[in-house]
Amino acid sequence: MSDCIIAPSILSADFARLGEEVDAVLAAGADWVHFDVMDNHYVPNLTIGPMVCEALRKHGVKAPIDVHLMVRPVDRIVPDFARAGASLISFHPEASEHVHRTIQLIRSQGCQAGLVLNPATPVEVLDWVLADLDLVLLMSVNPGFGGQDFIPSALEKLRRVRERIDRLGKPIRLEIDGGVKAENIREIAAAGADTFVAGSAIFKAPDYADVISRMRSEVAAARGR
Amino acid sequence: MSDCIIAPSILSADFARLGEEVDAVLAAGADWVHFDVMDNHYVPNLTIGPMVCEALRKHGVKAPIDVHLMVRPVDRIVPDFARAGASLISFHPEASEHVHRTIQLIRSQGCQAGLVLNPATPVEVLDWVLADLDLVLLMSVNPGFGGQDFIPSALEKLRRVRERIDRLGKPIRLEIDGGVKAENIREIAAAGADTFVAGSAIFKAPDYADVISRMRSEVAAARGR
Amino acid sequence: MSDCIIAPSILSADFARLGEEVDAVLAAGADWVHFDVMDNHYVPNLTIGPMVCEALRKHGVKAPIDVHLMVRPVDRIVPDFARAGASLISFHPEASEHVHRTIQLIRSQGCQAGLVLNPATPVEVLDWVLADLDLVLLMSVNPGFGGQDFIPSALEKLRRVRERIDRLGKPIRLEIDGGVKAENIREIAAAGADTFVAGSAIFKAPDYADVISRMRSEVAAARGR
Amino acid sequence: MSDCIIAPSILSADFARLGEEVDAVLAAGADWVHFDVMDNHYVPNLTIGPMVCEALRKHGVKAPIDVHLMVRPVDRIVPDFARAGASLISFHPEASEHVHRTIQLIRSQGCQAGLVLNPATPVEVLDWVLADLDLVLLMSVNPGFGGQDFIPSALEKLRRVRERIDRLGKPIRLEIDGGVKAENIREIAAAGADTFVAGSAIFKAPDYADVISRMRSEVAAARGR
Amino acid sequence: MSDCIIAPSILSADFARLGEEVDAVLAAGADWVHFDVMDNHYVPNLTIGPMVCEALRKHGVKAPIDVHLMVRPVDRIVPDFARAGASLISFHPEASEHVHRTIQLIRSQGCQAGLVLNPATPVEVLDWVLADLDLVLLMSVNPGFGGQDFIPSALEKLRRVRERIDRLGKPIRLEIDGGVKAENIREIAAAGADTFVAGSAIFKAPDYADVISRMRSEVAAARGR
Amino acid sequence: MSDCIIAPSILSADFARLGEEVDAVLAAGADWVHFDVMDNHYVPNLTIGPMVCEALRKHGVKAPIDVHLMVRPVDRIVPDFARAGASLISFHPEASEHVHRTIQLIRSQGCQAGLVLNPATPVEVLDWVLADLDLVLLMSVNPGFGGQDFIPSALEKLRRVRERIDRLGKPIRLEIDGGVKAENIREIAAAGADTFVAGSAIFKAPDYADVISRMRSEVAAARGR
Repeated sequence: MSDCIIAPSILSADFARLGEEVDAVLAAGADWVHFDVMDNHYVPNLTIGPMVCEALRKHGVKAPIDVHLMVRPVDRIVPDFARAGASLISFHPEASEHVHRTIQLIRSQGCQAGLVLNPATPVEVLDWVLADLDLVLLMSVNPGFGGQDFIPSALEKLRRVRERIDRLGKPIRLEIDGGVKAENIREIAAAGADTFVAGSAIFKAPDYADVISRMRSEVAAARGR
Repeated sequence: MSDCIIAPSILSADFARLGEEVDAVLAAGADWVHFDVMDNHYVPNLTIGPMVCEALRKHGVKAPIDVHLMVRPVDRIVPDFARAGASLISFHPEASEHVHRTIQLIRSQGCQAGLVLNPATPVEVLDWVLADLDLVLLMSVNPGFGGQDFIPSALEKLRRVRERIDRLGKPIRLEIDGGVKAENIREIAAAGADTFVAGSAIFKAPDYADVISRMRSEVAAARGR
Repeated sequence: MSDCIIAPSILSADFARLGEEVDAVLAAGADWVHFDVMDNHYVPNLTIGPMVCEALRKHGVKAPIDVHLMVRPVDRIVPDFARAGASLISFHPEASEHVHRTIQLIRSQGCQAGLVLNPATPVEVLDWVLADLDLVLLMSVNPGFGGQDFIPSALEKLRRVRERIDRLGKPIRLEIDGGVKAENIREIAAAGADTFVAGSAIFKAPDYADVISRMRSEVAAARGR
Repeated sequence: MSDCIIAPSILSADFARLGEEVDAVLAAGADWVHFDVMDNHYVPNLTIGPMVCEALRKHGVKAPIDVHLMVRPVDRIVPDFARAGASLISFHPEASEHVHRTIQLIRSQGCQAGLVLNPATPVEVLDWVLADLDLVLLMSVNPGFGGQDFIPSALEKLRRVRERIDRLGKPIRLEIDGGVKAENIREIAAAGADTFVAGSAIFKAPDYADVISRMRSEVAAARGR
Repeated sequence: MSDCIIAPSILSADFARLGEEVDAVLAAGADWVHFDVMDNHYVPNLTIGPMVCEALRKHGVKAPIDVHLMVRPVDRIVPDFARAGASLISFHPEASEHVHRTIQLIRSQGCQAGLVLNPATPVEVLDWVLADLDLVLLMSVNPGFGGQDFIPSALEKLRRVRERIDRLGKPIRLEIDGGVKAENIREIAAAGADTFVAGSAIFKAPDYADVISRMRSEVAAARGR
Repeated sequence: MSDCIIAPSILSADFARLGEEVDAVLAAGADWVHFDVMDNHYVPNLTIGPMVCEALRKHGVKAPIDVHLMVRPVDRIVPDFARAGASLISFHPEASEHVHRTIQLIRSQGCQAGLVLNPATPVEVLDWVLADLDLVLLMSVNPGFGGQDFIPSALEKLRRVRERIDRLGKPIRLEIDGGVKAENIREIAAAGADTFVAGSAIFKAPDYADVISRMRSEVAAARGR
């Protein structure tokens, strides 16, 4: 299992030429496409839905599309995203009445399943479902609100979840989202993250390949290589 | 006031190259950009939000952007769309606790305000607010569900609303959305519509200019020209 | 079209031996089985769902099952009742975001569709959908609350809706529910109802056949026969 | 039935000495105490509840307390206000699933019942319940938002509702709330209102008795006396 | 305290002759009647409510009726079930704003109180209320969805909750629901359960007494007898 | 940091002369004004909102106003209370979609932030936010319901939270609300509380100063002074 997945969040891309943007960032070395879905209910913003995901697939995008659902409730829209080409679908436990069932639903649609922990969410929500997950996503900012810095306590939370994953011994990815950039990715990787969402740090940079490559070097440094 | 506004719905465009699509359809003679916002609550689908609207403005789109909110509740997202460059904002009376207040809010943000009537919505919802509106949008299909035909009773409803607008004597546009195409636009125009949303009829046509020009001829024929 | 359908509401039957009760009331001359579904949200009570409907069909009930949904929202449960053997499905316009769409959905599932008007609901809700309906149900008590008398203004409402149905000239049934009994059914029929829900008036009577037959005579008297 | 009830809204009074304020305004000639209840759900504000009503009764207030519920849902809090000493309880039809039932509930608790129409609400909501009401309250501003002017279309709405009340011939009060002051009360009375809510126009005036007396003179002038 | 309570879920019984079914299963040796209430909100299904419970009592059922509320919110319906003859009432902590208060409410109505843990619910929800409970119900399938197998992690969860109950030293029952049958009940009992819900395993068996007796033998075997 | 803050809850004061009541209780030695806000949604009661808070400030109250929000959702009303003069704002984690964000919001408005734990709420909700808080409020009765006694398990919960606060070493107040009186305040203080809400124990006492002074002595005794 790769220990450094870079997943640029297309919320920071130019929506007027999204296909081109995604092509460019993948050509520059990104691994996944991170796709942030907000419904103006679970978070106070509304972004993009299944049609945009489907358009990327029709455009020719082959990379994994990593859908982060900031919606409530969750279940109705899962099959829509599966049909639209999502590879992974993650959701917030607070947004589903039946967390175990939602994980089963995502998998029954042929996708990998992730659970997202908000900055204040206790890690105990993982107690009875970690073995059923493909990915845990820790938020290091509050989802749905712009312009925030990386919340420092996320480092300790990464360590705690990393320990649980290692103890379980299953190939579950540990993803981090919020305020990640080349400047702090080394300590984030050292704390246990192996999958890194970055938005403006990549799409607002003059050279996508350069910033992605610097991120990879930092992660490698954290791994002692 | 122009008696034939063609407003292609970008839900049928290619989201991977949306700027290009919008440029093309405007160059082909379209007047407005129709922008359908769904939140997975008021309708069972989630489409696009303010960021996509803003991207079109940054891309250089100058035409009016005609935002149709299929969201509930309405008020929180109105300022977001105003800031993102919306020209008109329409909403469903069933989706706002305070219809008159929402109209005031849209106008206070510098946009024109529209009210949308679902196929089953009585026209009495216009009784006390028509004079405060810039646009009435009649749905001739059920919003949020694909692949529907024009509902025939919408013609009689157009006549009834046209009569109310004419009696009032104010320049309020009468827009129709759902199943509109070159083949039926003449009778729709004859029933009183002056603003026409079309999605796949335009974006799935081989030549945007050709279909828009045929639509205009049909509307002109309905006007007896 | 029969001008006197008697539809006993099984809410007043003995749920411990429901099959037997339904057999008996049909043998006693009832035409339909009226099935009241409450969800503890649209009304403050919870009654019976699709499983009970299906059990009646498996038990051998052949008569039409007339499902009155006092639930909100409506759409998710419609296919469940169609699969469970419902013949007609009626709902409250206040309980569906998209009234026209819900009617289409009920019909697409092979059932007949009805709209239910609460005592305070204006008849204008029928303006744009009457032609798509198989049945209009007027409530002459408030649904979900026990022990109420027939609300007198329902007679005038029956006359107003009867007039609309006759003007349209389609075979749409006009059903009444709430406080109907042999003592007042004649004037109710005279006001225009042709389908009569009765609960305790039938199931609490010592002889089902006797009360149903008296109801029919009274309706016939109202028809001047 | 008095044709001029002045009902000062205590939202504009000083909550630090509410008993004194209410005593003063009643001594100055006010007839009723108008009590605006907001729940931060039906309107975006939260004001005062049953405890404050009860405190006024314990303080010795004998005048009718006219409670306007801007809350959703309505039914649970009705008995609380009845116990707290409310004389009339009014609510918005959009805020109750069962309008007729809520009216019955208010009356069963020993209070008079009113229905409130927002600026955009069609008068057809009165069609089947007017005879069961003691009061109709027309909003001439949007409830829950401060600093608004009297909406002019409320005058025509007053005339339409006045006509309905007169045709019915029952002693139903016609109340107006929003932007009422000595300067415009004459034309409001002429349009048919007989009960007048005023907030800052009274409580922000230097002399309560003076402004109330001027209001009464204006109403009398409208009556041609 | 009995260490083997068998509680057949009547969701799998024939609703057309429910009284007879319940009589038969109790005669066959069942201890409790398990009564699953779904409201189409907390779970996507609607089953049976207080009227059906009351009908069983009127029919003569004397055994404890063990009501599992899969409804949200919980409090309003609790007194209805107490009046209808429920012996125990269990609910989901996620479905009540005030878990401790709901437990108090159930007890104040003369019923025993239970808390239900979904497959993903952390056991920490028991931390501050275990001593106030009569029963803990662990779900070994997701409630409200049919045709599921026993979720294996429920065994470990049983052990963890059993340990907490034993440490507390109070007579609190530990119930399990979902996929329980004669084939797996031994290891479930060994993990700590003492109360066993079974639906189709009993009601779809040709001989109720035989399967219940086999279940008891297996539980006894787990106890080393 | 003072180890004994007495915060009388004005819910038990006389709302007809609230300014006077607050002046009196502060003159009698109270430290803070405790302000209970209920919205008829998070709890089944509606009390007082920002206008009443503002009136106290205008009346001249200088003491800290300690606002306890029993409302859901939380965020919209926070700026209203900040503007109205609140010093501390506390909320329930179950009532906010984004607990960390709400804490940030309260602080960004210039107020101190508190989190409130219901009797059944696990202390794990503090795991990732304790360092961001100024106050933890433990409920020793269920909020929104009258006439309850102190729940004994709150003592153990106080000890557990006190331990966490001491371990962190930040000046976070530990407040208790529900059934606190002179008779039990000593053991409550001994368990770790340093801030004490009392309602009727103070406002229903004949002499405010006497009861507050007795409370202080008891707390001092708990501290071994």
